[in-house]
Amino acid sequence: MTIQDEFSFIKSITPKTYRQPHLVAGIGDDAALYRGDSNVEEIICLDTMIEDIHFSKKTMKPFHIGYKALASNISDIAAMGGKPIFYLVSIAIPKHWSAEELAEIYKGMENLAERFQMDLIGGDTVSTKDSLAITVTVIGRIEKGKHLLRKNAKAGDIVFVTETLGDSAAGLHLLLQYGVDYSFTKDELALVRKHQLPEPRIEIGQLLADYPRVALNDVSDGIASELNEIAEASNVSIVIERDFLPKSEGLEAFDEKEQLKWMLYGGEDYELVGTIPQEHWTSVEEKCKEKGFLITKIGYVENGPSKVLLKEAETYRLLEKLGFNHFRD
Amino acid sequence: MTIQDEFSFIKSITPKTYRQPHLVAGIGDDAALYRGDSNVEEIICLDTMIEDIHFSKKTMKPFHIGYKALASNISDIAAMGGKPIFYLVSIAIPKHWSAEELAEIYKGMENLAERFQMDLIGGDTVSTKDSLAITVTVIGRIEKGKHLLRKNAKAGDIVFVTETLGDSAAGLHLLLQYGVDYSFTKDELALVRKHQLPEPRIEIGQLLADYPRVALNDVSDGIASELNEIAEASNVSIVIERDFLPKSEGLEAFDEKEQLKWMLYGGEDYELVGTIPQEHWTSVEEKCKEKGFLITKIGYVENGPSKVLLKEAETYRLLEKLGFNHFRD
Repeated sequence: MTIQDEFSFIKSITPKTYRQPHLVAGIGDDAALYRGDSNVEEIICLDTMIEDIHFSKKTMKPFHIGYKALASNISDIAAMGGKPIFYLVSIAIPKHWSAEELAEIYKGMENLAERFQMDLIGGDTVSTKDSLAITVTVIGRIEKGKHLLRKNAKAGDIVFVTETLGDSAAGLHLLLQYGVDYSFTKDELALVRKHQLPEPRIEIGQLLADYPRVALNDVSDGIASELNEIAEASNVSIVIERDFLPKSEGLEAFDEKEQLKWMLYGGEDYELVGTIPQEHWTSVEEKCKEKGFLITKIGYVENGPSKVLLKEAETYRLLEKLGFNHFRD
Repeated sequence: MTIQDEFSFIKSITPKTYRQPHLVAGIGDDAALYRGDSNVEEIICLDTMIEDIHFSKKTMKPFHIGYKALASNISDIAAMGGKPIFYLVSIAIPKHWSAEELAEIYKGMENLAERFQMDLIGGDTVSTKDSLAITVTVIGRIEKGKHLLRKNAKAGDIVFVTETLGDSAAGLHLLLQYGVDYSFTKDELALVRKHQLPEPRIEIGQLLADYPRVALNDVSDGIASELNEIAEASNVSIVIERDFLPKSEGLEAFDEKEQLKWMLYGGEDYELVGTIPQEHWTSVEEKCKEKGFLITKIGYVENGPSKVLLKEAETYRLLEKLGFNHFRD
């Protein structure tokens, strides 16, 4: 990218208007500025996605890549119980990506940003020789003291998860088999979409932040890994029951062993998994039902040492903190 | 990097204590949290540096690479008049970088962070096939309403710059010629250090934020480019005088033409360049002198259209918005 191309590219992605009233200065100076607020806690996270490691043109269109890079960060804000407000994007661009493809990446991000009333307020655009790399930083806010941390779980709590598990991994499986341009059936397409266009659970995170002592994680690495993080941070034992794990219709088409692998270790579902004191469970269930969100009890918390067990019939199996690629069976 | 290596690497870079009292949660949850403050504006910026594009092992040790990745972002906070408080680091690591080198990168950042009492509060660690890439996000704060923007310049203002210009480019020239392990003379070493370990001008930025209507930029791309940004944002003409440009002793050793090229177009000095209403100039000069900072008047602001001119004897030359690599002579 020449310096002239870079100027016009930055111009093309600079928002013409901003949505957040507390923004003071967005793109166009050395840094962005927004008004502080003593009633909130500021939340910040960042994630990097690299071509052919975290995504591939074989399974994702440029629009999906942008969408998902922002979605994974918004999901981290959801896991704290917060609301996303701003984002910044650093992109390293190799020669084999066209201006049209880059524009699609930013459209994918803008699609989500519009929905959550977020503003793009800064970034960096650099050249690279090799693979496209996107780093997204997201800033969110939450009412003072209401944030949800992993260390909140205690014996007697209920373990829950939102919506269904394993769909993103199943979608990836289909995409690797048939390619991004294949005509999928309706059920297959739901799985594929879950991989390409995951829905960050901001509304459910905010709903949970109204209850005391909720421990929460988003499912980026698979629930085995996420629950181990909660177990470690809280020094508790977590037991989940195989028969309780929520499954989509689309997933039922696959071999049972595959299904379980994807539900436990398939990441990138971006659902929320956590624990809540038993006395609040009925209320949470009702509120989610009212709003049309599925939330399912999948287990319970016991006293430590920290570990995660899968209960099936009357046998218990230790679930290790491993990513999808490291599943051995 | 295996998943086990990644866990132990993240553990090794996680701070054991934090310096900022308003931090609520640093590394270790889905996102970091810190208390908001209605008396301030939040400042945020990010920068990406890529191996063999923005830095090279031939001219920089790993410590320098980490230091400079953070310094360039702190410099952006300085250009707003603010104080840096937190940083997040995303690093994409190829196989040819050792654990020792990575530790040195983080030591280089920690060196600066300690000096400014900043905390590392988040990040991402990923593998890449090719070149090392570091993206640093910095959060700063400034008292409400005191921020310094590029659009503040008006006809009659004085144009100033801190310390000396062109040293980083001269240092890079020496490093490319002799390599990173060469025994440089004292004067040469000052230039080399300016390239490897630039000093972000936080104290001067904060001092300038006490005056009304200062326009400010940090010199990341050379003053020709930085002043064009101020001229465009403020819609003014800027005239700088060749004989006023502040020069280090080390720079004098080079050919006059090279000196001028580096002073105008050599970026990465991370000095501050800006404009200030004439009536405040003497006061700023005195305050800088008291604190041991060099600040130099290099020109003046005239009514638009926006352009930047270099005055030499009685001739004027138009300075274009070009980076170092694009200088044609």
